[in-house]
Amino acid sequence: MPSELQSGALAPIQTGAEYIESLRGRNLKVWYMGDLVKEPVDHPVIRPSINAVARTYDLAVENPDLATAWSSLSHRRVNRFLHVTESPEDVVAQNRMQRRLGQLTGTCFQRCVGMDALNSLYSVTFEMGAPYHDRFKNFLIRMQEQNCVIGGAMTDPKGDRSKGPADQADPDLFVHIVGRRPDGVVLRGAKMHQTGCINSHWIVFMPTMRLRPADRDYAVVAAVPVDHPGLTFIYGRQSCDTRALEGGSVDQGNAQFSGQEAMIILDDVFVPNDHIFMNGETDWAAPLVERFTSYHRRSYVCKTGLGDVIIGAAALIADYNGVAGVSHVRDKLVEMTHLNETIYGAGIAASHESQPTAAGNYQPDDMLANVCKHNVTRFPYELSRLAQDLAGGLVATLPSEKDFDNPQTGPLLRKFLQGREGASAEDRARILRLIENMTLGRNAVGYLTESMHGAGSPQAQRIQIARQMHLEEKKKLAKKLAGID
Amino acid sequence: MPSELQSGALAPIQTGAEYIESLRGRNLKVWYMGDLVKEPVDHPVIRPSINAVARTYDLAVENPDLATAWSSLSHRRVNRFLHVTESPEDVVAQNRMQRRLGQLTGTCFQRCVGMDALNSLYSVTFEMGAPYHDRFKNFLIRMQEQNCVIGGAMTDPKGDRSKGPADQADPDLFVHIVGRRPDGVVLRGAKMHQTGCINSHWIVFMPTMRLRPADRDYAVVAAVPVDHPGLTFIYGRQSCDTRALEGGSVDQGNAQFSGQEAMIILDDVFVPNDHIFMNGETDWAAPLVERFTSYHRRSYVCKTGLGDVIIGAAALIADYNGVAGVSHVRDKLVEMTHLNETIYGAGIAASHESQPTAAGNYQPDDMLANVCKHNVTRFPYELSRLAQDLAGGLVATLPSEKDFDNPQTGPLLRKFLQGREGASAEDRARILRLIENMTLGRNAVGYLTESMHGAGSPQAQRIQIARQMHLEEKKKLAKKLAGID
Amino acid sequence: MPSELQSGALAPIQTGAEYIESLRGRNLKVWYMGDLVKEPVDHPVIRPSINAVARTYDLAVENPDLATAWSSLSHRRVNRFLHVTESPEDVVAQNRMQRRLGQLTGTCFQRCVGMDALNSLYSVTFEMGAPYHDRFKNFLIRMQEQNCVIGGAMTDPKGDRSKGPADQADPDLFVHIVGRRPDGVVLRGAKMHQTGCINSHWIVFMPTMRLRPADRDYAVVAAVPVDHPGLTFIYGRQSCDTRALEGGSVDQGNAQFSGQEAMIILDDVFVPNDHIFMNGETDWAAPLVERFTSYHRRSYVCKTGLGDVIIGAAALIADYNGVAGVSHVRDKLVEMTHLNETIYGAGIAASHESQPTAAGNYQPDDMLANVCKHNVTRFPYELSRLAQDLAGGLVATLPSEKDFDNPQTGPLLRKFLQGREGASAEDRARILRLIENMTLGRNAVGYLTESMHGAGSPQAQRIQIARQMHLEEKKKLAKKLAGID
Amino acid sequence: MPSELQSGALAPIQTGAEYIESLRGRNLKVWYMGDLVKEPVDHPVIRPSINAVARTYDLAVENPDLATAWSSLSHRRVNRFLHVTESPEDVVAQNRMQRRLGQLTGTCFQRCVGMDALNSLYSVTFEMGAPYHDRFKNFLIRMQEQNCVIGGAMTDPKGDRSKGPADQADPDLFVHIVGRRPDGVVLRGAKMHQTGCINSHWIVFMPTMRLRPADRDYAVVAAVPVDHPGLTFIYGRQSCDTRALEGGSVDQGNAQFSGQEAMIILDDVFVPNDHIFMNGETDWAAPLVERFTSYHRRSYVCKTGLGDVIIGAAALIADYNGVAGVSHVRDKLVEMTHLNETIYGAGIAASHESQPTAAGNYQPDDMLANVCKHNVTRFPYELSRLAQDLAGGLVATLPSEKDFDNPQTGPLLRKFLQGREGASAEDRARILRLIENMTLGRNAVGYLTESMHGAGSPQAQRIQIARQMHLEEKKKLAKKLAGID
Repeated sequence: MPSELQSGALAPIQTGAEYIESLRGRNLKVWYMGDLVKEPVDHPVIRPSINAVARTYDLAVENPDLATAWSSLSHRRVNRFLHVTESPEDVVAQNRMQRRLGQLTGTCFQRCVGMDALNSLYSVTFEMGAPYHDRFKNFLIRMQEQNCVIGGAMTDPKGDRSKGPADQADPDLFVHIVGRRPDGVVLRGAKMHQTGCINSHWIVFMPTMRLRPADRDYAVVAAVPVDHPGLTFIYGRQSCDTRALEGGSVDQGNAQFSGQEAMIILDDVFVPNDHIFMNGETDWAAPLVERFTSYHRRSYVCKTGLGDVIIGAAALIADYNGVAGVSHVRDKLVEMTHLNETIYGAGIAASHESQPTAAGNYQPDDMLANVCKHNVTRFPYELSRLAQDLAGGLVATLPSEKDFDNPQTGPLLRKFLQGREGASAEDRARILRLIENMTLGRNAVGYLTESMHGAGSPQAQRIQIARQMHLEEKKKLAKKLAGID
Repeated sequence: MPSELQSGALAPIQTGAEYIESLRGRNLKVWYMGDLVKEPVDHPVIRPSINAVARTYDLAVENPDLATAWSSLSHRRVNRFLHVTESPEDVVAQNRMQRRLGQLTGTCFQRCVGMDALNSLYSVTFEMGAPYHDRFKNFLIRMQEQNCVIGGAMTDPKGDRSKGPADQADPDLFVHIVGRRPDGVVLRGAKMHQTGCINSHWIVFMPTMRLRPADRDYAVVAAVPVDHPGLTFIYGRQSCDTRALEGGSVDQGNAQFSGQEAMIILDDVFVPNDHIFMNGETDWAAPLVERFTSYHRRSYVCKTGLGDVIIGAAALIADYNGVAGVSHVRDKLVEMTHLNETIYGAGIAASHESQPTAAGNYQPDDMLANVCKHNVTRFPYELSRLAQDLAGGLVATLPSEKDFDNPQTGPLLRKFLQGREGASAEDRARILRLIENMTLGRNAVGYLTESMHGAGSPQAQRIQIARQMHLEEKKKLAKKLAGID
Repeated sequence: MPSELQSGALAPIQTGAEYIESLRGRNLKVWYMGDLVKEPVDHPVIRPSINAVARTYDLAVENPDLATAWSSLSHRRVNRFLHVTESPEDVVAQNRMQRRLGQLTGTCFQRCVGMDALNSLYSVTFEMGAPYHDRFKNFLIRMQEQNCVIGGAMTDPKGDRSKGPADQADPDLFVHIVGRRPDGVVLRGAKMHQTGCINSHWIVFMPTMRLRPADRDYAVVAAVPVDHPGLTFIYGRQSCDTRALEGGSVDQGNAQFSGQEAMIILDDVFVPNDHIFMNGETDWAAPLVERFTSYHRRSYVCKTGLGDVIIGAAALIADYNGVAGVSHVRDKLVEMTHLNETIYGAGIAASHESQPTAAGNYQPDDMLANVCKHNVTRFPYELSRLAQDLAGGLVATLPSEKDFDNPQTGPLLRKFLQGREGASAEDRARILRLIENMTLGRNAVGYLTESMHGAGSPQAQRIQIARQMHLEEKKKLAKKLAGID
Repeated sequence: MPSELQSGALAPIQTGAEYIESLRGRNLKVWYMGDLVKEPVDHPVIRPSINAVARTYDLAVENPDLATAWSSLSHRRVNRFLHVTESPEDVVAQNRMQRRLGQLTGTCFQRCVGMDALNSLYSVTFEMGAPYHDRFKNFLIRMQEQNCVIGGAMTDPKGDRSKGPADQADPDLFVHIVGRRPDGVVLRGAKMHQTGCINSHWIVFMPTMRLRPADRDYAVVAAVPVDHPGLTFIYGRQSCDTRALEGGSVDQGNAQFSGQEAMIILDDVFVPNDHIFMNGETDWAAPLVERFTSYHRRSYVCKTGLGDVIIGAAALIADYNGVAGVSHVRDKLVEMTHLNETIYGAGIAASHESQPTAAGNYQPDDMLANVCKHNVTRFPYELSRLAQDLAGGLVATLPSEKDFDNPQTGPLLRKFLQGREGASAEDRARILRLIENMTLGRNAVGYLTESMHGAGSPQAQRIQIARQMHLEEKKKLAKKLAGID
């Protein structure tokens, strides 16, 4: 029997709590640490990542201006993560929402990939023409009505990087069509580093790179419900992930929220025609990837929200340590702010400078989007370094919260770890754990490593910047001023 | 007999050539290298700075969309440098024009101070109320009709920096009112580093810092025609300035364009009431300075135009050297572009995020404006370093163009300084001289030192960033995630 | 009954295995995660830190030239960690040994504090005069004979940083004398971040800062056996520490070695006179701290050994990914090497430039020692960032080793995580875990956070650099060249 | 009639004044700005570069420990610039002398190339065997006796960089043998960027790169007296060079000292056998280049002497501006010092770690030498940027010294440019000019551009670092810790 999700009968979701309920009982095959997870919603390691997505729903309720938009597609107010942009302001509004959610969760809230994927697919399917655009719009309207989470899956395992998809020794190293039927296609392969996939309702599979005619079976875009029995998920370990299993809330640093990344294995997944938005059109793989990365690279503005948290944490620990007014401390907070806002500037500039596509939605400026992301591969590491500087060595030598709870060691810790008057040892510990969480621990994965590699590693941005640096025009400017004909 | 300028009878200017004519015969007291300059327009050292301003007029003719705007103040199309912004798009358009002029001149074209000053004064005088706002509008409408160049003069000599204006041993170290008459006031003092002052028609004098009640006589804003007999100008030396006196065009690097900075001394300058826009209202000094610097700091987007030139020059010399395809060369050009666009991103983001003032014009986002300028105090130095890297040592050991012209040495230089096939020794020399010009020579003053200190030195931006970093809000975000009540 | 250690009857230790045996059965009060640890030697979380110290013994056996020295004090070959330097070459040799041990363990091997403390105490007690120098020499000769591990304990909790030791609300926030008896003194207080303390045989307690006459009771240097019943140890948590409890060896990244930091609480510890090397001489606190930090800051050359490991790991993962020959990959390895060797250069320069003290041992150059450490607060973070760049996103999304072992998920991981031909998924996983270990995990504590704060936080180095920058001499140089009398 | 120099009859030189006299009347063909220079010694633009070399002689008189050494070759005390190193201490002593001369001159004193060349040739000719080593020793002993300046000429024009010497369209683009006679060879070609060549007595020509068998005629090392009639010199222009022609001493910034670089053209220069130290042995070109660059790259420690001057100048202008005690000012001086000493650390470390050659002299550590130079391609630019930051905008807008002298403008400048009490406007101007000199002007050529390209451009160091980074060894370290067999 198809699930509610598969049958399209999912009840519309409004609040975070409803969203969490919608994830229960799906019988997903999720593996973590060698075990099949019974119910991800109740798994202490997985739950914080679900909470982060739930926060996006609650924000839409609390602040509809920020986190919803009127859609002229479905003629209703929809969650902004499901909205097809209709103006540059819409593109900018995504950034504002992203920064706010970064501030509220201190982690990756996992919905940007889907948002960026649907906006890219909207214009690409339009240009591809019938039947893809209509199919896609129908799918999207349903998503908007049910208020679902869409994940977007792009990165394949890739195998030998010197070879294309069709040339690999193992053909499954890129997701591909292994069977074509009148009513649909059958997919096989895997996708790596899938942000928030288990927390999604649907996943849109897309090619990961420019394709050649020989790669025809790899040119496929397909929406698949997450509870499809052909899908297997293997959960990625994160630094300090098992602290969530210890009980207590201090040592996790940020006990409520975390990101999620998992591998998805597709074991002969049948997709009906209605959910197929590309099927063999290799020429359209590159435009899709390019529009998606352009969108997604400026989505990393979300990290400025995490930056706000880490700046706040650094300011707070300096305060607890009684050195808030010291000039070098103040100066480091200014530097952190400067770097954080530099990222924000390039990101929202990319959004403000959006241009309409033929389909009518808006694409960010690609140069600035790449510049934004490229700064994200650098500055969070420096913010993290400065936060550790301000934190003091205790950020990495602090005893466990269980030692605080223990009747013999607790009083000793409280006696010797007091900061300035009025700052308790426990509060100091909590902030140190938050800084540890973001610079070494669980959310360092999101704040640092994902900042490096998400939406493309640094070199990918450099290639894209190189493509657009217009050297010939710039050479002409120089020649003219130098007096060369 | 008052000049045409003073009497308000100046004929409207359109082209660069007309502008240059408008500067002739003004009998200014301009000193350079110990001599009174007869006619600045014809002085080889000064002329390139005039050409740069002239280029702004020609751009308005060539590309009115970019460099002019419809003014609802004077109900006509006006030069964008004289335009009171009426929308965020207007603020952004300034940045686009600035970048373009940076590309076309490779130097400081000197009109931004005036543009930023008039936009700040527009809102400040509005809030100050009668009679200042009306006076200012009348003045501005006349400027728009005559299409004048307005300079803005802010920086005083300051003397002992630990003391305020009224506390200095010598009261003249800040411009101040030394006499009040029914029909106006008398000013005395000096202004430093005055960009383009000699090339202006009018100069608006403004206070340079927050004032206390005791500084009442220093709280003055006044427009003065540049040919006022009470003004003396002492021209600032620039690196390699006298190459303009040598004849030839190669060794100057950029023979046509340069910036201009001079000291202005005010020796009891009478200003009639109509041209006084602040007179003793010390409380309004700080808002004026803040709005001006906010505007002006994101105006440094102009340096991305110079960045485009230096990137082009670096690409060209790599090409002439036959190494354009080498990976580290390519990578350095990408890095230069990335840094240059990072500046641009923060700048136009500040402009896009402009907010309306009570007067109806638009103010850029102050945090992003400061972030833009702060990056300008860093990145052009790194672009310059990378340009010198790509240039090779010859950029600093190249013989003079006279040695190229000499019948004995010329052939030797042509023989031994040939680059890759098709690249002449002369073209190579010209590009090397352009790079020298922008990294060590005359326009390094504009590309580097002015980038450092113009619109406030780095520490001024850090203070302003500190003021707006909202640490208490950020601390709350951190507390919430760390589980601290 | 006093322990063998306390009675001075400890049998001489030679190998790592003997060292480990020497730690058994000491009945220390060590707390970790809320529990009293039965036998630290057998505790999976603590053991890797013991292994790291054991490695220093084995190196002395394998390579006596590198890790031992002839001592003219005890007239025998002694472990270099217990050697009083007798020449600049001796000081340099410490650095060579430190780098090698960093390479062999990939972590903090914990013996430098003791080595640097004894070298500082040697010259300071000499200058303090009788009876301290003789006592200290006797103590040291015994240590050399028994071949013990000496820990050095300096950092006090400090409480309110705006107040000195004697002014704190709670007098115990710095270690101090609470009782004086004819045969010795009684100590109370705590020490923070004590590297390798549990793995030591003796700990030398020292003041942490310049003292005033009022701080007389805080001016105490005392050697205490680690099994003294008045000592309590609370173990510091490290990122990912509990992976050691999971079984398996992959996910730990570096299963064999780790660092150790713990708090030590002194609950009325009696120290006999023979082991007291300062007692109330407040004037000598500052020289001791300064000589110690000078020694210890250039000891951070050890991190170049860890740098060698991380460079090797980055090169290896690039190789496994099939991109070892790509120009940007190669270039990043060069940059990592350049930064690593820059640290090394400053460190061994400080050692080479050592000067003899009055006591005859050698002190490193203080400016260069500070410069070395200051680079250590920056460059390992950049090496870590570059290592994560080269690692790819999998470094933070890789499933657990238990998923590799599981019969259902194992084959899927092996299929999809294969790298270039010849590189197994398991080997790839092992290297990724090592990079995680050093950039986010357990040894990131040593490679990053301890690099930041060990031997003094960055600002401490800046203060010390400022003290020695000889501005007046440099001003004279500038004046002379500028033609100022 | 051969000159005294050519005949070997040059009287021994002792003082700087004697050195200057030794340069007179040599009838060199030196071109500058299109003219043949009558007497370089008396040319205002050239003289400061001669003064810088003269300072090396005077230092040897003032401080023989620092700037001379006992030579076991000629059994006498010789100038250290002519000394074959006999111990690591000798190599370190070069660095100490270099830093001191950098401090005393604020520019390039031009003698390091010769020193480094003779040390490299000493060991290379030894390994090449008879007759080269004996010839070279004889030549060197004569140089030591006469106390001459030896220049070393390496960099050829190179033409098309994708081709080797023998493959160029024009065979003269590398210096080569165009005739072989029983008593010697005839050379043709040119050398670029020749530091101090006109100020030398002898120039040693050397190949610039690894040679193939086909390049046999390019494998030549030859000593030529500077007054050889076949040599032509074309002087390189430097930023602001003609300020030396203006009279006055302020605007030059550093009126007494400057560097010198010129092109040398060899027009069929006959060299007798006695002065030929390589003749066709292509295999020895690479070792010579490598040993030379290894020596020469750590010679860039000289720039730390210039760094001391610029730090002093920055501290002085901050003092004159009355802001010496401000925290960010102080912090910038610390940063400048830290960077400067980081260079020094790597440089002297390279020297301390010198190893003996087969010939018995000492070669610096090549990795550290390259690391030193690579930092020199970065940090002086940052010191320069920080110096401009501390200088204030006046460094680039200051009027000419003639305006200070003028009776009308002088008093105005003195009134308005006064700094803190006790700091005269003139002194302030002098220091600003010195900072301009080192960051934009004449000695910026030496402090910045030569720091970039001298002894090889940055990429040359990266290649050399790459060659020595021992990745395979480092991979093994990582494998071992990761548990990979």
